[in-house]
Amino acid sequence: MKIAVLGTGGGARCHIAKLGELGHEVLVGTREPAVTLARTEPDMMGTPPLAGFLAEHPGAQLHTFGDAAAASDGVVINGIDGHNAVRALSAIADQLAGKTLIDYAVPFIYRHEPEHPWPTPWGIMPKLEPVDTDSLGERIQRALPRTKVVKSFVTQEQSTVVDPKSVGGGEHTMFVAGDHEDAKRQTVDLLTSYGWTDILDLGPLVSARGMEMYAHLHSAIGFGLGQRFGGHFGIKVVR
Amino acid sequence: MKIAVLGTGGGARCHIAKLGELGHEVLVGTREPAVTLARTEPDMMGTPPLAGFLAEHPGAQLHTFGDAAAASDGVVINGIDGHNAVRALSAIADQLAGKTLIDYAVPFIYRHEPEHPWPTPWGIMPKLEPVDTDSLGERIQRALPRTKVVKSFVTQEQSTVVDPKSVGGGEHTMFVAGDHEDAKRQTVDLLTSYGWTDILDLGPLVSARGMEMYAHLHSAIGFGLGQRFGGHFGIKVVR
Repeated sequence: MKIAVLGTGGGARCHIAKLGELGHEVLVGTREPAVTLARTEPDMMGTPPLAGFLAEHPGAQLHTFGDAAAASDGVVINGIDGHNAVRALSAIADQLAGKTLIDYAVPFIYRHEPEHPWPTPWGIMPKLEPVDTDSLGERIQRALPRTKVVKSFVTQEQSTVVDPKSVGGGEHTMFVAGDHEDAKRQTVDLLTSYGWTDILDLGPLVSARGMEMYAHLHSAIGFGLGQRFGGHFGIKVVR
Repeated sequence: MKIAVLGTGGGARCHIAKLGELGHEVLVGTREPAVTLARTEPDMMGTPPLAGFLAEHPGAQLHTFGDAAAASDGVVINGIDGHNAVRALSAIADQLAGKTLIDYAVPFIYRHEPEHPWPTPWGIMPKLEPVDTDSLGERIQRALPRTKVVKSFVTQEQSTVVDPKSVGGGEHTMFVAGDHEDAKRQTVDLLTSYGWTDILDLGPLVSARGMEMYAHLHSAIGFGLGQRFGGHFGIKVVR
């Protein structure tokens, strides 16, 4: 299949690499391909330049966000950071019309003003916006009424989303939520191809609130386990 | 031991009954004992009148909040609802001085104004206040600087907190957070006596944010499992 991945950060690269391994044609979207390819230094998160990554993953082709979305067969993975997602996706609403958009972003705001220190033992904990009575997933769906938004992947690091067996042999739970059953089925099929066996449907997209707000507990569990960055764990719903 | 449980709702009763079974003397705190005992109808949550419950649990004695806290050997479980907890506990700050206070409240606000509908497929989802950059656990600790506050129990129904083996044979994880190591040790000891074997220390009390904010995901998981009320499940941290 032709699957689009919007974004070129560490999380997006996990999906690009895995989808390539699974034999898919991967359409990678970025704002300005020439600018992205010209970078020669790691970004602020320490992610190496994309050019080298693409050289190692010849099945992936770099396009603009809109061209990548338009060329996908139907599934688009949103790896654009939460702060910019609604604006960037709204700009390509036509190219996303009719597609399934799987969103895994946490709507973190990295403001470090003294009046909002948000200190935690593992560093500054970013604030969520929206939170509690709304979610980024719902905001994206409202901004893109012709697109079928599914929230998923968000409750753990993307390196473990694409390799569930690497954590406890795969004995953990992945969640999906969305207002479109066919889009959720596509997401479950994709997750199954990644190796997931316990996928729990949380119902409509309103459940994205809980999935995004879990980010704080995820960080705290990582701290509790002594894994300050890039936690290598999952949670299993025990019935 | 003499252990105080503040509150007489369904969650508090789970702890009262379990502590009695374990041979503890249970000091139950309520605002006005005479008024509580005079009730003959179930409350708004459907909880039966306390008088009948106490008749079945002769090891439990009813006191005012302050008298129950003062008479405990050192551990007080806070079962006062989140909306009223800071005010009710501040009023008995002297009686709580030097004690360990285990708080499991979620700071739900049940406002049903039309402009804040918070609808979900499983009914109105209450709003959290505080949320994200503060927590009820931290608020209680700030209001009671002479008390050692531990946040725990909050990530699942109290009926399963006191009977962990009833869910998946006990193969799930309980969390503790707090700024006082001795108070956390007392909490871990209590949880161990309840039957818990996987107890993860999330560090300082700031981790109460994530534990409280998990309430939304907990509700959504309950919906996903078809358990609309009183979910009978837990989550396990899979390493």
